[in-house]
Amino acid sequence: MTQPTRLDAQMAFLMEADRLKTILRATPIADDSRRENSAEHSWHLALFALVLGEHGADVSTDRVIRMLLLHDLVEIDAGDVPIYGEVDTAAIEAREQAAADRIFGLLPADQAAEFRALWEEFEANETPDARFAKSVDRFQPPNLNLASGGGSWRDYAVDWPMFEARVGRKIARGAPTLWGWIAPKVRAFLSRA
Amino acid sequence: MTQPTRLDAQMAFLMEADRLKTILRATPIADDSRRENSAEHSWHLALFALVLGEHGADVSTDRVIRMLLLHDLVEIDAGDVPIYGEVDTAAIEAREQAAADRIFGLLPADQAAEFRALWEEFEANETPDARFAKSVDRFQPPNLNLASGGGSWRDYAVDWPMFEARVGRKIARGAPTLWGWIAPKVRAFLSRA
Repeated sequence: MTQPTRLDAQMAFLMEADRLKTILRATPIADDSRRENSAEHSWHLALFALVLGEHGADVSTDRVIRMLLLHDLVEIDAGDVPIYGEVDTAAIEAREQAAADRIFGLLPADQAAEFRALWEEFEANETPDARFAKSVDRFQPPNLNLASGGGSWRDYAVDWPMFEARVGRKIARGAPTLWGWIAPKVRAFLSRA
Repeated sequence: MTQPTRLDAQMAFLMEADRLKTILRATPIADDSRRENSAEHSWHLALFALVLGEHGADVSTDRVIRMLLLHDLVEIDAGDVPIYGEVDTAAIEAREQAAADRIFGLLPADQAAEFRALWEEFEANETPDARFAKSVDRFQPPNLNLASGGGSWRDYAVDWPMFEARVGRKIARGAPTLWGWIAPKVRAFLSRA
């Protein structure tokens, strides 16, 4: 047997990452034909960051894109956590830390450390890049819900105060321009519903 | 009515992009449960570029990632073209140019020009970034086919000479290291089949 190489380790990580395509989220895609999976969601967010990066303050668009490409990989082990569901935050955090250990641990040590640090930065939600990335992650689903005529808002009986508290504040924190754009649309929709 | 803003145009583009999630490719995902769609494929390729960029020569990883996030958007109008199918290259090129006009044309003019130029660079396959991006686009599917026990190779009755001619040369052009890694694996698999 030859020794596993650096490229073997990189490929083991990339093929494990394929499983993110099987993790379903609460939100439907825009045409309401099926639920969105976390891999295509990650692509859509990276595209949002590429197009909308100019609306962030002190943001490196390329760093935000890297963060968003990686941000959901822990869901392969820990599952998606719908934002409107009732959750045990400490238990989820423990599951996600164990998932990060295992999944990033497939990579060569230098890349494992680099990607883990980017993911931890995203989770901590303190730097300008992380705050913008987190805002984009909260901003995309309501756009899909508006397009699909309600989406996950129907399933969780979401009203405007609940939306504003759970989602709105997080969008506003890292991307006030995006919040200013979508808030009246969501408010009008949820008031009619 | 208020005038459409820059952000309105950016959002029209991003919501149109959602349709890429409904474009199915010839290749199955690794667990062979269903065909891959072009949105999750684009995410997977961007992740490949992030992890494997060091194996490219004179490559800007972040530029390659941007290119790969955008590279399949024309398929929303033009459809996916399976690499092993028989095709009318001129007709496809005309359809894709028209698709690029319409889809990138949804953006503000400066971003439309910037993204169109990146996509044209990818298609031309001449710069180091484009050659590496194109190689990654050819390198990911055989990995899925190996994982799923044949995948699109079964459907198109692909043998080693066909694979080497249609796929191998393109991987080797922009990423000889990746070609050196996968060639013996594919050769062994297709010789057994």
